[in-house]
Amino acid sequence: MSDARLTLGTVGAPSRGFPEAEFATRTEKAQALMAQQGLHGMLLLTEPEVRYFSGFHTLFWQSPTRPWFLFVPATGKPIAIIPEIGAELMRQTWIEDIRTWSAPAPSDDGISLLTELLSPLAQSGGRLGVLKGHETNLRMPLGDYERLMSSLRGMEVADATGLVRALRMVKSEAEIEKLAHICGIGSRTFGEVPQLAREGLPFEDLFRLFRREALFQGADDVPYLVGGADQGGYHDVISPPSPRPLQRGDIFMLDTGATWDGYYCDFDRNWAIGHADDASRRAYDVLWRATEAGIEAARPGTTCRDLFHAMQSVIAELDDQGGDVGRLGHGLGMQLTEWPSHAAFDDTVIEENMVLTFEPSLSYGDGRIMVHEENIVVRADGAKLLTQRAATELPVI
Amino acid sequence: MSDARLTLGTVGAPSRGFPEAEFATRTEKAQALMAQQGLHGMLLLTEPEVRYFSGFHTLFWQSPTRPWFLFVPATGKPIAIIPEIGAELMRQTWIEDIRTWSAPAPSDDGISLLTELLSPLAQSGGRLGVLKGHETNLRMPLGDYERLMSSLRGMEVADATGLVRALRMVKSEAEIEKLAHICGIGSRTFGEVPQLAREGLPFEDLFRLFRREALFQGADDVPYLVGGADQGGYHDVISPPSPRPLQRGDIFMLDTGATWDGYYCDFDRNWAIGHADDASRRAYDVLWRATEAGIEAARPGTTCRDLFHAMQSVIAELDDQGGDVGRLGHGLGMQLTEWPSHAAFDDTVIEENMVLTFEPSLSYGDGRIMVHEENIVVRADGAKLLTQRAATELPVI
Repeated sequence: MSDARLTLGTVGAPSRGFPEAEFATRTEKAQALMAQQGLHGMLLLTEPEVRYFSGFHTLFWQSPTRPWFLFVPATGKPIAIIPEIGAELMRQTWIEDIRTWSAPAPSDDGISLLTELLSPLAQSGGRLGVLKGHETNLRMPLGDYERLMSSLRGMEVADATGLVRALRMVKSEAEIEKLAHICGIGSRTFGEVPQLAREGLPFEDLFRLFRREALFQGADDVPYLVGGADQGGYHDVISPPSPRPLQRGDIFMLDTGATWDGYYCDFDRNWAIGHADDASRRAYDVLWRATEAGIEAARPGTTCRDLFHAMQSVIAELDDQGGDVGRLGHGLGMQLTEWPSHAAFDDTVIEENMVLTFEPSLSYGDGRIMVHEENIVVRADGAKLLTQRAATELPVI
Repeated sequence: MSDARLTLGTVGAPSRGFPEAEFATRTEKAQALMAQQGLHGMLLLTEPEVRYFSGFHTLFWQSPTRPWFLFVPATGKPIAIIPEIGAELMRQTWIEDIRTWSAPAPSDDGISLLTELLSPLAQSGGRLGVLKGHETNLRMPLGDYERLMSSLRGMEVADATGLVRALRMVKSEAEIEKLAHICGIGSRTFGEVPQLAREGLPFEDLFRLFRREALFQGADDVPYLVGGADQGGYHDVISPPSPRPLQRGDIFMLDTGATWDGYYCDFDRNWAIGHADDASRRAYDVLWRATEAGIEAARPGTTCRDLFHAMQSVIAELDDQGGDVGRLGHGLGMQLTEWPSHAAFDDTVIEENMVLTFEPSLSYGDGRIMVHEENIVVRADGAKLLTQRAATELPVI
């Protein structure tokens, strides 16, 4: 046995879940936007959306077997159409109308229940919102979706991505409290890395120690952990760890998405083992200052494009190509990455209470890449860090 | 800091990844089936399918922002159409034709690359396989899919779910080795639970201790952990943990999907704290014997329906309704749950080298539910356990 001591667990943790008023407010805001956009209902299929409007929270979504549906009507509470296995948990939420079937049932996985629910909409030529846009997916069998829609002729299907995106991008104080808590856990975990990492340690074992430390510090889970390590800089930022032992002269990076009560932190840290080469130190300094430029520029009324340019103008000191990541940060919340994107294509206006990452990256040397990331909340007077700011110089272990 | 000792990490671990021949064999088998079914290509979008044919393995799929595509042609190696951020990692695989774009790019997230690739198929009236069937989803924006398909008129789209399912359900020896390894890690972790759990321990903290133990025992990750705990039996099998401390008389269950090199175990264990009530002991005994009946019945040539009835006939001693889970086990591999289902609707014929779970469940008492689960591989002469068989009687801590 390894270690049966209590973890720091619930120390300093906010309360779990949300008061019913949070879901009522979210639903009312959605319904106001639906009315503006002429939507008579919204059919949601994806985990964050179902959780956002219902509070239904389970890891069971990892099983791809069963589809789950939440219908947001023009007025009143959402209606859940879900597999029977989820009924007990759904009854703990504010949802009252819960319609279930014994799933899996390949011949009818909720389709007749949906047809019954949506037929009035079809008969009146109504307009149904579904998520069809950027960063969304269809979490049900495509064949079932096509059959459902062909049985609902007369109903217009509209893309509700913009509506849901507008709501979810701006966080409530209760959401920000959860995000601040997990960012604190992540910061304390990164703070322990100099005690965990050392020359000779297999990189994959550092991943295990990091995950164990994050759990000790109070994370519920560490769903996302990637990194890179190599002499004079790493080459890739999305790989699983190799068994290669850390060596003197390695630059290594860990990037984690840890969760607390279903909310993510998403940031990374860089270190050198024994010795940091000049090129990596320079890259680190540029990225640190690019992040600072992003933090300073973030306030209500600016755009994601502005934030991108603020960071990119510093990155350009070393790399004017822009790197492979495709953007310099993004939204953060119930998902590891959420809308918007700090990119030239994204003219989203920054609003108070958005939670964002700044994630400048650059290429340098012989195919090296470096990334740097912090998490912030936008307040009326500017960005407030949720993460403990990285050291100003590349730390050497 | 909690614990910087080395974990058991790589002790006894098989080698990571697969030799190139594994991917060549998978692709050739797919292409033989494609020829039989008149498919001129297959477009795959989901993590397990892309990994199955390419070896591309990253947790980055957790970010919903970018779509990923792998095209399996009628002959030759698959072609990757992926965001630039994944190019370096894809180049480590056996894939040679890697076409990238700078993603995210909401106006064209791979669509023009796909159109270019698939246009010849459309012009010749060819037939493209995509996954549209049970337990699949469309991991790209629905709007982009609709636009892509409308630009490829002349091309017939067919459901390739059966084809992919037939391949993935039967595991190679290298896959079975990985599955056996993670099942062993899971078994050792469950073996430590009597040292981790005790009266007064918040249930959510037991989850943290369990995850830490699984990592210590060598798991790469513990993406799935659910459970239940309550006096005289739990009510729900998919919930996140409550902060409620364990009490004498509680029956509690932990169900985990831990991973090693991208392969899952999926099984659970039950315990009592201090005292086990008679109804729970009886339920446990029935489920243990139902599992045994499934294990005994599993051999090449039987069907999933047969396995369902073998288990259900034992469960019927206590519960002839069948419970809420909807099936009594399923396939296991790169996903927590895979085809087939041990259910009355599933007439899949059991084949050698399928890896399966047996997961009988029942309702008892005043709305209690109990589940029991083991993982096996089907060999020519019957089932071989990958998990260390649960105790014959409900263990009391």
